Amino acid sequence: MANSKYEYVKQYEHDETLLRDCYLVCRVDGRSFHKFSSDHKFSKPNDDRALALMNRCAEEVMKQFSDIFIAIGMSDEFSFVFRKETTLFGRRNNKINSSVVSYFTGHYVLHWSEYMGDTPLQYVPSFDSRLVCYPNETALRHYLSWRQVDCHINNLYNTCFWNMVAAGDSEVKAANILKDTDSGGKNEILFSQFNINYNTLPAMHRKGTILVRTKVPQEVLTPTGETHIRMKNTVITTHEDLISDAFWIKYQLIPLP
Amino acid sequence: MANSKYEYVKQYEHDETLLRDCYLVCRVDGRSFHKFSSDHKFSKPNDDRALALMNRCAEEVMKQFSDIFIAIGMSDEFSFVFRKETTLFGRRNNKINSSVVSYFTGHYVLHWSEYMGDTPLQYVPSFDSRLVCYPNETALRHYLSWRQVDCHINNLYNTCFWNMVAAGDSEVKAANILKDTDSGGKNEILFSQFNINYNTLPAMHRKGTILVRTKVPQEVLTPTGETHIRMKNTVITTHEDLISDAFWIKYQLIPLP
Amino acid sequence: MANSKYEYVKQYEHDETLLRDCYLVCRVDGRSFHKFSSDHKFSKPNDDRALALMNRCAEEVMKQFSDIFIAIGMSDEFSFVFRKETTLFGRRNNKINSSVVSYFTGHYVLHWSEYMGDTPLQYVPSFDSRLVCYPNETALRHYLSWRQVDCHINNLYNTCFWNMVAAGDSEVKAANILKDTDSGGKNEILFSQFNINYNTLPAMHRKGTILVRTKVPQEVLTPTGETHIRMKNTVITTHEDLISDAFWIKYQLIPLP
Amino acid sequence: MANSKYEYVKQYEHDETLLRDCYLVCRVDGRSFHKFSSDHKFSKPNDDRALALMNRCAEEVMKQFSDIFIAIGMSDEFSFVFRKETTLFGRRNNKINSSVVSYFTGHYVLHWSEYMGDTPLQYVPSFDSRLVCYPNETALRHYLSWRQVDCHINNLYNTCFWNMVAAGDSEVKAANILKDTDSGGKNEILFSQFNINYNTLPAMHRKGTILVRTKVPQEVLTPTGETHIRMKNTVITTHEDLISDAFWIKYQLIPLP
Ligand SMILES: Nc1nc2c(ncn2[C@H]2C[C@H](O)[C@@H](COP(=O)(O)OP(=O)(O)OP(=O)(O)O)O2)c(=O)[nH]1
Ligand SMILES: Nc1nc2c(ncn2[C@H]2C[C@H](O)[C@@H](COP(=O)(O)OP(=O)(O)OP(=O)(O)O)O2)c(=O)[nH]1
Ligand SMILES: Nc1nc2c(ncn2[C@H]2C[C@H](O)[C@@H](COP(=O)(O)OP(=O)(O)OP(=O)(O)O)O2)c(=O)[nH]1
Ligand SMILES: Nc1nc2c(ncn2[C@H]2C[C@H](O)[C@@H](COP(=O)(O)OP(=O)(O)OP(=O)(O)O)O2)c(=O)[nH]1
Ligand SMILES: O=P(O)(O)OP(=O)(O)OP(=O)(O)O
Ligand SMILES: O=P(O)(O)OP(=O)(O)OP(=O)(O)O
Ligand SMILES: O=P(O)(O)OP(=O)(O)OP(=O)(O)O
Ligand SMILES: O=P(O)(O)OP(=O)(O)OP(=O)(O)O
Ligand SMILES: [Mg+2]
Ligand SMILES: [Mg+2]
Ligand SMILES: [Mg+2]
Ligand SMILES: [Mg+2]
Ligand SMILES: [Mg+2]
Ligand SMILES: [Mg+2]
Ligand SMILES: [Mg+2]
Ligand SMILES: [Mg+2]
Ligand SMILES: [Mg+2]
Ligand SMILES: [Mg+2]
Ligand SMILES: [Mg+2]
Ligand SMILES: [Mg+2]
Repeated sequence: MANSKYEYVKQYEHDETLLRDCYLVCRVDGRSFHKFSSDHKFSKPNDDRALALMNRCAEEVMKQFSDIFIAIGMSDEFSFVFRKETTLFGRRNNKINSSVVSYFTGHYVLHWSEYMGDTPLQYVPSFDSRLVCYPNETALRHYLSWRQVDCHINNLYNTCFWNMVAAGDSEVKAANILKDTDSGGKNEILFSQFNINYNTLPAMHRKGTILVRTKVPQEVLTPTGETHIRMKNTVITTHEDLISDAFWIKYQLIPLP
Repeated sequence: MANSKYEYVKQYEHDETLLRDCYLVCRVDGRSFHKFSSDHKFSKPNDDRALALMNRCAEEVMKQFSDIFIAIGMSDEFSFVFRKETTLFGRRNNKINSSVVSYFTGHYVLHWSEYMGDTPLQYVPSFDSRLVCYPNETALRHYLSWRQVDCHINNLYNTCFWNMVAAGDSEVKAANILKDTDSGGKNEILFSQFNINYNTLPAMHRKGTILVRTKVPQEVLTPTGETHIRMKNTVITTHEDLISDAFWIKYQLIPLP
Repeated sequence: MANSKYEYVKQYEHDETLLRDCYLVCRVDGRSFHKFSSDHKFSKPNDDRALALMNRCAEEVMKQFSDIFIAIGMSDEFSFVFRKETTLFGRRNNKINSSVVSYFTGHYVLHWSEYMGDTPLQYVPSFDSRLVCYPNETALRHYLSWRQVDCHINNLYNTCFWNMVAAGDSEVKAANILKDTDSGGKNEILFSQFNINYNTLPAMHRKGTILVRTKVPQEVLTPTGETHIRMKNTVITTHEDLISDAFWIKYQLIPLP
Repeated sequence: MANSKYEYVKQYEHDETLLRDCYLVCRVDGRSFHKFSSDHKFSKPNDDRALALMNRCAEEVMKQFSDIFIAIGMSDEFSFVFRKETTLFGRRNNKINSSVVSYFTGHYVLHWSEYMGDTPLQYVPSFDSRLVCYPNETALRHYLSWRQVDCHINNLYNTCFWNMVAAGDSEVKAANILKDTDSGGKNEILFSQFNINYNTLPAMHRKGTILVRTKVPQEVLTPTGETHIRMKNTVITTHEDLISDAFWIKYQLIPLP
């Protein structure tokens, strides 16, 4: 197409190229979901419909961006990890980041009613996102562990808090009690006051949702009518602990020491 | 909330702070809209419903981000200009960029059926976006002029092309004829072969859509029952030429020389 | 020359391209000159030989890099301003910055004995440097004013301090008195106790040294033996106030409002 | 010290923080040393005095910056490798880069006559420098191998070239012959025409100069008059091959697979 004399303004553009050989982590997080979850009456502390919707969006992102090999999500956020070798969009920061968050948001709005039933979407939710480089496996595992531990810490706190409030405590009182209580203390409150064994609560609430790109065996029929087993690319959903080595040995996603 | 030993991984994060005193331009552009527009049978060369949907999304973005004072859009793209002085998100590149594109996309999906009638949304559209710094008024005006000239060039070409195809030329033949034809030649083709005076085609197609934040007079009723005039903040839509000085003198959006 | 399979490692390189249309300011500052000036017995508060050496290095930098049009220096630092339009090294941050500081340092060592007489250079001095973008004339003038005001503040303080110490005050006592004294108070101390009118002290100490690239008239002899006046490019040295408009009107270095 | 209203201009500064956990490589390279070496009549193809001067500067840099654990140099360049964990100047790109190149240049000028004897320094040499992140051991070793292979390729070529020219070939003719000759061919020319076995040429010319920070045993005398062996930090100079594993096994500088 013809050019104009104004086209030189494209030279002001600048998109950082992310360092080679690094895992690229894109973390998407809901903007003002404190208000959004309250306006849409998410159940507390966890709304399984809302979480399922987040997971659905993340699955769609993984289907779309084939260099993502693992993702972890909880609350209003999801982190997507690209292979070290990815050359997606020439590793351009803004281009990758905007494409992921846009695709995620589009799915969130599109599938809202599929997951949230008759709760109408009152206004458009949005997400921010960032891209971070992690140069080695240790740093990457620490990143994912950070998110999973954070999920646990928040869930333990929120489970206590909302049970206490449901039992009649004021929010101020509940917060006051919890601020001086360590992890053991919170487990104790749940057990003694509410007869809840924290470890039997749903894994999705305690560990978040992990999506793993892997191969699964699949029966296929040959033209001659025999069945044989083929390995098929797929994305599976799990809520396992990813902090310990077992997870990484099981899934063989990255080189291990 | 309690911290974990893994929290140090946040130190790998890095978000560029955009240079002070510069206009920040965020340009959102549909990903693979060649295919998307075809899959959803957009009318050619311009689908007024699709353009109205884009304009709606842009208006919502301007309502949400009050530091945007002008925007221009055409085809599958929109450019938003933030005031030089904006301190939105500390001028962090990724944070601003992702928030804008996410919000835009959410609205695109949400309002789809409102604008596209009974054309169902077959899959999620997405957008990429970028942020560019323009350090002075001349550069900014050249940027906006670039987009408006581009709109014109594309529209003139597409109008010829689809008229020729509708009249029986093959797409190959039409393209072949047009590639050796300058702007005057294309006007001539439109006029002599299709009796179309290019300048009478809709301004939105020729100039794109400009959204301007401005103040308009509004009648208000005082407690004592009198009416008086107040200036009210609003966003207006126009399809004027923004290349010449007249536009800038009229709207007084930026310091003029 | 032949390539090797290892050459791909050059792809890890990344040098930021500085935004177009901005003034680029390179500020060079002596590393640990508190110790260096003391080890080399610089006279206090100002050592005119050391300052002359700094100025010489800055002149050489201006001769070498023709896009620098003004520079200001004081103490162990010099700031060099490149034209907005400079395309030196494709505006690459590291390339410009390292070339300037290296050239400056080389001259500092080379000319040491020329300026410092029989004070031997005990070890190698070094400088750090940075490049900063200033997008408009106001910001640039504020930058230069910042350096000149800083020069004044430091010089006024140091002049008081060393006079008080020379008159018998301990360094602790002098510092204590000065910390509660404003600019007027310091002028008063100088005048009443030491009979010094601050404004009559050398302009170089109060205002720093400014180097300006300009044209001066020069007599040239024509082949026919007549003399005529030609404008010749040169770098002049001045210690004028550059904060007020007068300086900028006089030298016409940048567009004025 | 008192502040001024202009101090806000410091907010335009921006120094990139280099990614954690990466080796930082600073490569210093002489500016226009083609001309500089010719103006100062460096012997061809290698001037051992000039190389010794470069090596001396590099040693001084390693003494000054204790996080550098290996360096390799040849011709007019030197590369310095900082430990992955270095926190020098908060890993600020410009600050590290300018400090290294300034210190290197200062030494080059200071020690010139010590190494170059009665060849006077006609003008100031300068160097540019850059900082590059290498996120893992493989990439780092490839980087260092790249420089060593480059040294070899250039030296083989230059040795042939200058021998041919010394033997009466024009420079054009020599270049013409060499451009179609591979490594084996060049070895063959050296051997058959000049009776030179390339592999017996000085290792410094073929492999460059490597500086390694290591510990060496040192005899120390105890107060009671006994001698015992202590490990002492030092920088050693070597010209070994660093491409093969043997080098890395010997020096144990980085984790090996
Ligand atoms: N009730 C309920 N709230 C949820 C659920 N998932 C997320 N939220 C809420 C709890 C938090 O207030 C909020 C997520 O915390 P953030 O730190 O992301 O804060 P927020 O999104 O409000 O602000 P931001 O824009 O991210 O800085 O979302 C849920 O399943 N149920
Ligand atoms: N028929 C029709 N097509 C449109 C309309 N608006 C946009 N399009 C199509 C025409 C172009 O093929 C496409 C926009 O061009 P782009 O350069 O943005 O390309 P595209 O989005 O395919 O690729 P990209 O992902 O941006 O690189 O969208 C419309 O109103 N009607
Ligand atoms: N006596 C004396 N000292 C001077 C003269 N010029 C500069 N200096 C000293 C005074 C200051 O201690 C020092 C410059 O201050 P800086 O803030 O640059 O500190 P310094 O270079 O020590 O540390 P830095 O590495 O820049 O952070 O140099 C002079 O003419 N005479
Ligand atoms: N005769 C001679 N020349 C040398 C010696 N060491 C370096 N040189 C010259 C040969 C090359 O022309 C030059 C180094 O090549 P470069 O690629 O660094 O080029 P140069 O420094 O001219 O340009 P640059 O500013 O780095 O782009 O220095 C030496 O020992 N003897
Ligand atoms: O997308 P194009 O082809 O119009 O051109 P661009 O937007 O400059 O390219 P990219 O989207 O890759 O930045
Ligand atoms: O959003 P927060 O408070 O969880 O913390 P953050 O995401 O690091 O902050 P920001 O969104 O501003 O980057
Ligand atoms: O300087 P060259 O030609 O060896 O190559 P380079 O160093 O990669 O180029 P530049 O100095 O311009 O970065
Ligand atoms: O060096 P200072 O203390 O004058 O202040 P600065 O130069 O802004 O600090 P740095 O040299 O660390 O950038
Ligand atoms: Mg956040
Ligand atoms: Mg949130
Ligand atoms: Mg969150
Ligand atoms: Mg594009
Ligand atoms: Mg597009
Ligand atoms: Mg487009
Ligand atoms: Mg400093
Ligand atoms: Mg200093
Ligand atoms: Mg200083
Ligand atoms: Mg170079
Ligand atoms: Mg060189
Ligand atoms: Mg070189």
